[in-house]
Amino acid sequence: MTIESGGTVKRERKIRLGMVGGGEGAFIGAVHRIAARLDDEYEFVAGALSSTPAKAKASGLALGLDADRIYTDFEAMAKAESQRDDGIEAVAIVTPNHMHAPAAQAFLKAGIHVICDKPLTTTLADAKKLKRLVESTGLVFGVTHNYTGYPMVRHARELVQRGVLGDLRVVQVQYAQDWLTESLEKSGQKQAAWRVDPKRSGAGGCIGDVGTHAFNLVDFITGLEVETLLADLHAFGPGRTLDDNTQILLRYKNGARGMLWASQVAPGNENNLSIRVYGSKGGLEWRQEEPNHLLYTPFGQPTQIIGRGTGAALASAARVSRVPAGHPEGYLEGFANIYTEVARAIRAYRNEGAKKGKTGRDKPVKLDPAIAFPTIDDGLKGVAFIEAAVKSSSKGGTWVKL
Amino acid sequence: MTIESGGTVKRERKIRLGMVGGGEGAFIGAVHRIAARLDDEYEFVAGALSSTPAKAKASGLALGLDADRIYTDFEAMAKAESQRDDGIEAVAIVTPNHMHAPAAQAFLKAGIHVICDKPLTTTLADAKKLKRLVESTGLVFGVTHNYTGYPMVRHARELVQRGVLGDLRVVQVQYAQDWLTESLEKSGQKQAAWRVDPKRSGAGGCIGDVGTHAFNLVDFITGLEVETLLADLHAFGPGRTLDDNTQILLRYKNGARGMLWASQVAPGNENNLSIRVYGSKGGLEWRQEEPNHLLYTPFGQPTQIIGRGTGAALASAARVSRVPAGHPEGYLEGFANIYTEVARAIRAYRNEGAKKGKTGRDKPVKLDPAIAFPTIDDGLKGVAFIEAAVKSSSKGGTWVKL
Amino acid sequence: MTIESGGTVKRERKIRLGMVGGGEGAFIGAVHRIAARLDDEYEFVAGALSSTPAKAKASGLALGLDADRIYTDFEAMAKAESQRDDGIEAVAIVTPNHMHAPAAQAFLKAGIHVICDKPLTTTLADAKKLKRLVESTGLVFGVTHNYTGYPMVRHARELVQRGVLGDLRVVQVQYAQDWLTESLEKSGQKQAAWRVDPKRSGAGGCIGDVGTHAFNLVDFITGLEVETLLADLHAFGPGRTLDDNTQILLRYKNGARGMLWASQVAPGNENNLSIRVYGSKGGLEWRQEEPNHLLYTPFGQPTQIIGRGTGAALASAARVSRVPAGHPEGYLEGFANIYTEVARAIRAYRNEGAKKGKTGRDKPVKLDPAIAFPTIDDGLKGVAFIEAAVKSSSKGGTWVKL
Amino acid sequence: MTIESGGTVKRERKIRLGMVGGGEGAFIGAVHRIAARLDDEYEFVAGALSSTPAKAKASGLALGLDADRIYTDFEAMAKAESQRDDGIEAVAIVTPNHMHAPAAQAFLKAGIHVICDKPLTTTLADAKKLKRLVESTGLVFGVTHNYTGYPMVRHARELVQRGVLGDLRVVQVQYAQDWLTESLEKSGQKQAAWRVDPKRSGAGGCIGDVGTHAFNLVDFITGLEVETLLADLHAFGPGRTLDDNTQILLRYKNGARGMLWASQVAPGNENNLSIRVYGSKGGLEWRQEEPNHLLYTPFGQPTQIIGRGTGAALASAARVSRVPAGHPEGYLEGFANIYTEVARAIRAYRNEGAKKGKTGRDKPVKLDPAIAFPTIDDGLKGVAFIEAAVKSSSKGGTWVKL
Repeated sequence: MTIESGGTVKRERKIRLGMVGGGEGAFIGAVHRIAARLDDEYEFVAGALSSTPAKAKASGLALGLDADRIYTDFEAMAKAESQRDDGIEAVAIVTPNHMHAPAAQAFLKAGIHVICDKPLTTTLADAKKLKRLVESTGLVFGVTHNYTGYPMVRHARELVQRGVLGDLRVVQVQYAQDWLTESLEKSGQKQAAWRVDPKRSGAGGCIGDVGTHAFNLVDFITGLEVETLLADLHAFGPGRTLDDNTQILLRYKNGARGMLWASQVAPGNENNLSIRVYGSKGGLEWRQEEPNHLLYTPFGQPTQIIGRGTGAALASAARVSRVPAGHPEGYLEGFANIYTEVARAIRAYRNEGAKKGKTGRDKPVKLDPAIAFPTIDDGLKGVAFIEAAVKSSSKGGTWVKL
Repeated sequence: MTIESGGTVKRERKIRLGMVGGGEGAFIGAVHRIAARLDDEYEFVAGALSSTPAKAKASGLALGLDADRIYTDFEAMAKAESQRDDGIEAVAIVTPNHMHAPAAQAFLKAGIHVICDKPLTTTLADAKKLKRLVESTGLVFGVTHNYTGYPMVRHARELVQRGVLGDLRVVQVQYAQDWLTESLEKSGQKQAAWRVDPKRSGAGGCIGDVGTHAFNLVDFITGLEVETLLADLHAFGPGRTLDDNTQILLRYKNGARGMLWASQVAPGNENNLSIRVYGSKGGLEWRQEEPNHLLYTPFGQPTQIIGRGTGAALASAARVSRVPAGHPEGYLEGFANIYTEVARAIRAYRNEGAKKGKTGRDKPVKLDPAIAFPTIDDGLKGVAFIEAAVKSSSKGGTWVKL
Repeated sequence: MTIESGGTVKRERKIRLGMVGGGEGAFIGAVHRIAARLDDEYEFVAGALSSTPAKAKASGLALGLDADRIYTDFEAMAKAESQRDDGIEAVAIVTPNHMHAPAAQAFLKAGIHVICDKPLTTTLADAKKLKRLVESTGLVFGVTHNYTGYPMVRHARELVQRGVLGDLRVVQVQYAQDWLTESLEKSGQKQAAWRVDPKRSGAGGCIGDVGTHAFNLVDFITGLEVETLLADLHAFGPGRTLDDNTQILLRYKNGARGMLWASQVAPGNENNLSIRVYGSKGGLEWRQEEPNHLLYTPFGQPTQIIGRGTGAALASAARVSRVPAGHPEGYLEGFANIYTEVARAIRAYRNEGAKKGKTGRDKPVKLDPAIAFPTIDDGLKGVAFIEAAVKSSSKGGTWVKL
Repeated sequence: MTIESGGTVKRERKIRLGMVGGGEGAFIGAVHRIAARLDDEYEFVAGALSSTPAKAKASGLALGLDADRIYTDFEAMAKAESQRDDGIEAVAIVTPNHMHAPAAQAFLKAGIHVICDKPLTTTLADAKKLKRLVESTGLVFGVTHNYTGYPMVRHARELVQRGVLGDLRVVQVQYAQDWLTESLEKSGQKQAAWRVDPKRSGAGGCIGDVGTHAFNLVDFITGLEVETLLADLHAFGPGRTLDDNTQILLRYKNGARGMLWASQVAPGNENNLSIRVYGSKGGLEWRQEEPNHLLYTPFGQPTQIIGRGTGAALASAARVSRVPAGHPEGYLEGFANIYTEVARAIRAYRNEGAKKGKTGRDKPVKLDPAIAFPTIDDGLKGVAFIEAAVKSSSKGGTWVKL
């Protein structure tokens, strides 16, 4: 329970937050709002929640926004909010993928910090451009590769960093779901519809929607650099043009080998993101659906079940836990950890700016190294991964550099 | 994701919430605050967070309270808040057990709704008195037997109510922890210290701290009425006067039989609350540490793993879920469900009062029957259970009526 | 894989084995035969497999017995076999409970070693009488409390004996099945019919059939002595006179507390024998349905999953394992371990007799202390447990001495 | 419990069995002997258990063989046994891989049925040659791809065959171990030494030792035909020339996609063979380490835990089970099922021969279609798989036809 800060002075004011996308019926918008609220670091005050004006309005009112801060256009919102004294300091972008880049640009240009859903953009070129913009502004930019927010993922990373597993050799990662087993997109289900549409999703289907999370999780925990990969993207759903099943082989620069499987057509899998990492001295396993425990095996000894919140949890895990062992934390808590770490970066930015008598935009603020939210760099890596995989697969499954 | 309400009118204002107890270092206070915040139904504005003035002040400031709403005395707080136009409408009482009754009385008398931690009181007489007071005021009174807030517990209850298990025959329930295996109370750990102290805990140790949750869970899911019980309460920790291990046999009015085990000295158990219910047609099992799945076995058929958020989840479970299947929800979400259901009761009270042009205190408001938060009656049952068990055990383990 | 012996001399001849009961359609008879065969220590050569002559004959032929060694009467069999040069040296008694005592007596009196199913007898008086007879003959007498044959049960016992758990405090044991949920005995199913019949089962139903196994398992692993117990035996099946659900509280002489639940009416439980033992320094858990792993938690440290066949398995477990880790062993292998240990005792008896120029019947042979098969003493304890529980329950559930 | 046959006539005599390889210290030889014994279908009477004469002799005596049937040379054994009236009818070949082909040839030519360990041979050419020989003799030839002997694997296969999963789309299979994480082969451990030696293992290391089992399991359950595969075989152990980690992508003729991972350097994995199969209507999952249960998910419904021995087990599973649900069966029982099915084929061969007044060698006997032991065809497929994977990998990981 280290998330709530203690002290003898009044708590600093909350960060004013806006949102683009996330109107009624959107799953991820509600998740972002809860995540922002959980640790009481943000105040949700403005939104362009839908591009349909009536829906934007209804959604905004239902969520308690003041009428004059409900927008139907993110450009207008960025402009208006940046001119208000009480304007938003940060914006969450939770639209379909193709809108991430333009929305992010608009807010960055208006001097507003950004929390963007993944994948960062629909093309690598856009991602690179966005990265340059972020760097030029010095603003905080978080990407919600939210699974890195789980305490036991942090624990796993720290184990690797401490060298406990020895030289890393093998990575097995998967992200399996079943919700697109049948042609849900033809039923009018909105979530399904945009995800199978290249115009809104980009060139990757399943690989962009969940494969990038799997890729990011490996990157976060192991720090391994991919040398080449080989992908077989396939669409099983009748009429689909984007992959709904993704199988990838990975070769890392240190000689390690990896397999990544992502699927949305695997009946019996709810949201089965799981990772196993093996090295010369030990192995570990973590499953997102039972996130409070990590299995760790020192070679030749019994497997240990390491519980979040126990004395055995490493410091990096303990600092992002809220409740004692055995009181399960879940998806929202992990997601909230990303939001809270971004908030700390924004507060550091505020303080730095205050010190310097200006906005501090000239260079990134220095953060506590323990803060580990995914940044523009992680977002960019994810898009590069998608592009490489699509390229490999479109050539029939050949090895390509990342 | 039915917790967020939709609509075309501006969301009603939040409920102003205060807290008694829950200052720095308290575990459950932070839990209540997060639970209140999760669905954005409450605004935390006042507190008597500690009886130590300096600590009350520091805690209040750190949590963002205004200085004039930080109190060191719950009587003063009840009085002052009831006289403010923007005074609190509800208070959360999260002190050690012996303070529950006096604090609850003070706020009820000031016309303020109460959310009280469990066990309700330290004596049955106090609990009965409090119940009469609640009834005379018509105010909303919730008791945080929070485990009833888990979606799959709601599902289990609905299965039983639908008769799917047939006639209930056997109940096995346990709540096992290990944190008092060694004499933690002698180390200065505050949580342990008051729990082993009869002056602050009441006559029950482990049975009050966790046994009541187990008892309540059976009551909530099965609706079975206890006829007699037989208890063997035992203290293993050197020097302890209150039980740290509790073993109970139960006979229900319909002929069913039950066993309840609660322990705080069982190494390897983090917060292992688990229940199994067996009837003439089927059985079910639920484990708090993996709360997103319920095992249900129709006799003679394969066991089914029923997932929260899936199409198989019954209505009563679906309405208290926030995220899709496979995105695990945990302890805080279940706790928040209690808060949000209490909020709905308070809003109904508000509206009823508005309609009648008065406060509505004369009789309880009518609630949507799906709302199922634990009330004063559940709190009272829990205290009756403790008293009966202590009585049985003190007689050497004899059958006593409940 | 230490079961097969190595060496440079020809293996000693197998032990000639007979069987009483276990004809066609009997479950446990086939189990005994496989168990005897697994390690190639026995040769099955004679049987009184049924009291119905035609069935005895057919069963014997089908199992490959010579016609002149197929009996319909165990008295005749004991007499005839004891007079043959190639007569059986040991007999397995696998009849319904009420025949255990008379059959065992007949073979002991004929100088033949006995392996008897549990419960040993239907009355404590019979059990005591049988014990005296066994002692007077010096013959080997094994009781198939077979669950003690599992390697990880041996491991658990060794952990306790080494003091790794500290002072034992709490035992939770259960043996739950569901096959008598409906009135199977009314359908003509033979296994069910005799088990619910007091004439053939004795005074205990579920408690004798599976409860004794649970009791024996605690006894074997912990060595704790029961001071008093309190039992609530109940019959849920319409018309049943014997219990089908058994709930028992136990107080041990060292102050430890126990709960034992046995049931045959718990839908979803196949053969769910599970034990948990907690002490001042650690805890352990073992589940018969996944017998190859034991959970061990040193207090304050992560739970360890200890695998049969791994380097972490203690000597007492390793010596009764056959295949490497991850190649699951099961029920038959555990059962076979009892048979093989009895075989070692019989061989020791043979050798001792050879040395002394006589049969060695005057006193028990000395065994390797690692040999741990259940003996007449364990059988007797089991019957005493049943009698005490029936007595307690028939008095309405009172504390009785064991 | 359908393995033991019933009837009113005396059981037919056992099949006389010999063994090549499997002397002291060999793991798999002991397994074969137990498997042969479990259902009492074989009598072990002759062996060439080691190529070292002293060891062959000692091993033979220790196992109870008569001195004149202990051989040090399989050619001599084949010749001598084929000339005895009581000569062996079948031989088990359990040597390192490179000896499989010559030994099998010798016995086939001597008119003796063969049970051969896997991989069948070290080259595809040898495998094809052996297949021709088997066909020309009409003898029974079983290959111990033993994992197909598990009841719930049979159940899985029947589910697929009944079309319950719909069109098959995705297969994920793995066989992970950790015993070669360190350089065990340098410690003098014999099992490790020959497995990493291309002279004795052939061109595949891990892929031959365990990868073929995984491949065979997919083949057995799904019947899918591979079109192309792409393999990345890698050796992590210092100085190893054969792979200890194997990652393969598979494309099936029906369009399905597969991934196969085999490893012997994955700490924490004992013998983790697991398979998941997904189709348009449902999915299934089976794990060898907990073989008594199969997970089956009809799309959109709860996952079912199907237990071996329960009423839900399909006929093909029930016929190879011995004990009731909840009494776990394991590796040896599954292995024994292969032996017992081979025995049925040999008995059919005997009877056919008897009918025809000759040996019946002219054409294969007709078997009950439920009998499903792996044959020479399955052995050959396994070798073809190894060759294709080695070829693919040696080209840097390209798609090759199978």
